[in-house]
Amino acid sequence: MATAPEVPLADGDLLAAIDLGSNSFHMVVAKYLLGQLRIVDRIKETVRLADGLDEAGGLDPQVMPRALEALGKFGERIRSIPPQRVRAIATYSVRAMARPHQFLVPAETALGHGIEIVAGREEARLIYLGVANGNPPEAGKRRLVMDIGGGSTEFIIGSGFAPIERESLQMGSIASTRRFFPDGRLTRRRWNAARIELTAEMRQFSRAYRERGWHDAMGSSGTIKAITDVSVALKLTKTSVSAESLAEIRERVLACERVDAIDLPGLSEDRRNIFAGGVLVLDAAFAELGIERMYASDYALREGVLFDILGRAQATDPRDASIDALCDRYAIDRAHAARVEATALALFDQVHGELQLDAADRRLLAWAARVHELGLTIAHSQYQKHGAYILEHSDIAGFSRTEQQQLAALVRNHRRNIHQGSLDKLPDRLIPGTLRCALLLRLSVLLHRSHSDRPLPPLLVELGPGPAATLRLPKKWLEANPLTRSDLDSEREHLAAIGRRLTIRAI
Amino acid sequence: MATAPEVPLADGDLLAAIDLGSNSFHMVVAKYLLGQLRIVDRIKETVRLADGLDEAGGLDPQVMPRALEALGKFGERIRSIPPQRVRAIATYSVRAMARPHQFLVPAETALGHGIEIVAGREEARLIYLGVANGNPPEAGKRRLVMDIGGGSTEFIIGSGFAPIERESLQMGSIASTRRFFPDGRLTRRRWNAARIELTAEMRQFSRAYRERGWHDAMGSSGTIKAITDVSVALKLTKTSVSAESLAEIRERVLACERVDAIDLPGLSEDRRNIFAGGVLVLDAAFAELGIERMYASDYALREGVLFDILGRAQATDPRDASIDALCDRYAIDRAHAARVEATALALFDQVHGELQLDAADRRLLAWAARVHELGLTIAHSQYQKHGAYILEHSDIAGFSRTEQQQLAALVRNHRRNIHQGSLDKLPDRLIPGTLRCALLLRLSVLLHRSHSDRPLPPLLVELGPGPAATLRLPKKWLEANPLTRSDLDSEREHLAAIGRRLTIRAI
Repeated sequence: MATAPEVPLADGDLLAAIDLGSNSFHMVVAKYLLGQLRIVDRIKETVRLADGLDEAGGLDPQVMPRALEALGKFGERIRSIPPQRVRAIATYSVRAMARPHQFLVPAETALGHGIEIVAGREEARLIYLGVANGNPPEAGKRRLVMDIGGGSTEFIIGSGFAPIERESLQMGSIASTRRFFPDGRLTRRRWNAARIELTAEMRQFSRAYRERGWHDAMGSSGTIKAITDVSVALKLTKTSVSAESLAEIRERVLACERVDAIDLPGLSEDRRNIFAGGVLVLDAAFAELGIERMYASDYALREGVLFDILGRAQATDPRDASIDALCDRYAIDRAHAARVEATALALFDQVHGELQLDAADRRLLAWAARVHELGLTIAHSQYQKHGAYILEHSDIAGFSRTEQQQLAALVRNHRRNIHQGSLDKLPDRLIPGTLRCALLLRLSVLLHRSHSDRPLPPLLVELGPGPAATLRLPKKWLEANPLTRSDLDSEREHLAAIGRRLTIRAI
Repeated sequence: MATAPEVPLADGDLLAAIDLGSNSFHMVVAKYLLGQLRIVDRIKETVRLADGLDEAGGLDPQVMPRALEALGKFGERIRSIPPQRVRAIATYSVRAMARPHQFLVPAETALGHGIEIVAGREEARLIYLGVANGNPPEAGKRRLVMDIGGGSTEFIIGSGFAPIERESLQMGSIASTRRFFPDGRLTRRRWNAARIELTAEMRQFSRAYRERGWHDAMGSSGTIKAITDVSVALKLTKTSVSAESLAEIRERVLACERVDAIDLPGLSEDRRNIFAGGVLVLDAAFAELGIERMYASDYALREGVLFDILGRAQATDPRDASIDALCDRYAIDRAHAARVEATALALFDQVHGELQLDAADRRLLAWAARVHELGLTIAHSQYQKHGAYILEHSDIAGFSRTEQQQLAALVRNHRRNIHQGSLDKLPDRLIPGTLRCALLLRLSVLLHRSHSDRPLPPLLVELGPGPAATLRLPKKWLEANPLTRSDLDSEREHLAAIGRRLTIRAI
């Protein structure tokens, strides 16, 4: 089958992952060698994006230049790497923005690459992937991984390279320092009250986690590394944080009385202001989950993203498995979905050059075809809307939030009127391609409207960036299928409403 | 357990069902005798509600007096029947209204009883139930039931008293006459084009229906009865409509050239104007589904409603089975849900008198407790919203649309801020009770926040129509559960936002 170019990874190819965190932006570049990744470059820029966010999700304009400057540097480094080998992801701070596109559009321009927003539980999956690749777990043993970011904290239990439980809570070194010590004053009373609130949040899953249990616990963020460094510098432990060393560090923090007065051996200057919140979250987690000892990992979210790019480029794209699981859970008619997918891809392969669609669009179209009937589980009436709701809001492993919104937009628009609102949720750069894929999906669904397993006749489609769209079908087939003919007439009206001119030609 | 009064049916009790159809309003009254229902009264009022509806769902004010007059008559007849033995349901025409409450509020006043909107597939279930009770099917054989209303047509395949497949399409005697012959002119060309459009709609399920097959086909509406009467009057058949007699009737209709000029033996004057649309829908269905012969049933939607009241009053409330199916499909933690339900009902039983809640509210509260975690299947974040979405939009057998919206409102409001929008969707008469049940559900969920299976201490709640709410809990327990205590503090803030004053007393 002809396809949009999907170049397999070759020895020496470079991959890059960029992580726009709440405290700092990170980039890591790796080289693919003999099936493995070798990290060849790391850049960290302390942007403190979270500092510029107010409670309503507004972004202080003063932070923007810092962020763009950092991204400009990263952009220079990735310019020679093919775009499909680069992923830039944004986490809590961008999720919390009231108008994320106001930040993302200039940010993407400075970086020269699209930036995807990733949901908390997907972030958790990527973190686990990074830690597992950096510190392979013992076979058959479970591991707890925890990552304290600036605004969110992830908790994962996994086995081997597969996460089993993933949770993400809105607490973190910056957020919790601000929330519980807004005037900077540290008191034991405040600390204890804060710990009750944080453990209350953890209660949602702590019981299940403890019942499952784990063999070792690892922490993967700057905060946990900093706490480990302090523990080691204080000679409380040799390489880790223990329950006792953490208690000692807490007491030393409390003795400082102010968050900006914390001065401990091993603690870097730029961590000082946000250290209290980080220790608080770890303190609550150790108590609520019963953690006795935690080791810091050098691998984290961004390394997880690298290994995810590797997985996507190989035969193990985790998104295929997730789509498969959705088909199961929502009892989708797979035979019908496969027929629609085959037709959609056949049409895609005829027009992708003209429509400037690439391999990523092709994959998305295939997935959308597989799940387009998902909403039928809820109700037939408006099932395209129900399916889009589930795809937009579900926790779907391997997909960024942006990709989920694209998938939701395709399913939302696979029949009936084109729903502009679902497209408007996407970054502007993705709207034209998504709409074009939606057109291909619509035609495919329509041509299989009878749900029959009789093969379709040869189809010829002409579709370009202009308004014209032509579908050529054998005359005999059209005459034998008056219903499809009548559906194509309605489709002409739907497309006319968005300025597309559909012509059906009998050949 | 003390409970709000739920009086079991006794011999001689009366039940009534009211059906606000697009063409006419019907009431049927039955007497419960020896476990059976005996129909003791029927009233039909030709209101032609659909005639007063414009395309945008606006209602011609001239229709209102006709509707209220009819409902006033029904109201007089049901005044002596206990309200829990009466159900009034509205179907397509009210579903299609842009502002249904503008119609429903005066209608409920005239009737002196609440009116529930029923979705198409639930309507289909009730129709099947009515026909199956009127004409019990042969054991183990499948039956096709079709009901052509003024605005919607239902297609059901069932076996025994259980429907297997249920579909509802927006076509009917009034709607299709208007849509395809807007100026009243009947031509063969228009007829054929209309048939293609209608069969295209049926294509969504016709293949599955034909593959399943049926032993006999029954029709249950005024339209199908009228067509049967014409067939018999023309001596084409003795008791049914056959494919041949239907073809002959179609030819005679087409020969009339105008819809209002149709004059056929056996056709009543008040059916004449809408006969063409009804014959058209049946003609398309016979062709698309391959129906050879159909018998008219005297039992229909309203009798189905009567048997449903009977089922609800006995041990076979179909809604329990539906809630059970939801728990399965969405893999709900039943043990936890059962604990929440027990607590919610224990609280309910302490305050239902003060809060003026009845047995229907108690059932609803129990169901909401069983499914309150349903949205977790989609995602943890905002799961109360996802659960409400599914409950509002799903096709849940046995529930009217109004009941589904109540259930959705309870789940939507079981945690976090009170969401006024979900309550505003309800008829005004249901808002106070639903909000009160939501308060009881919130407290129960909160008290089980730890998901522990340790039993709760004795609870005492004081809650009335005023703003005060007091929860008494053993002092020891409160001291041992600082997290719940902290959650109760947040709850106080949530309730303060809606003017409720929650006090926690240690006893």
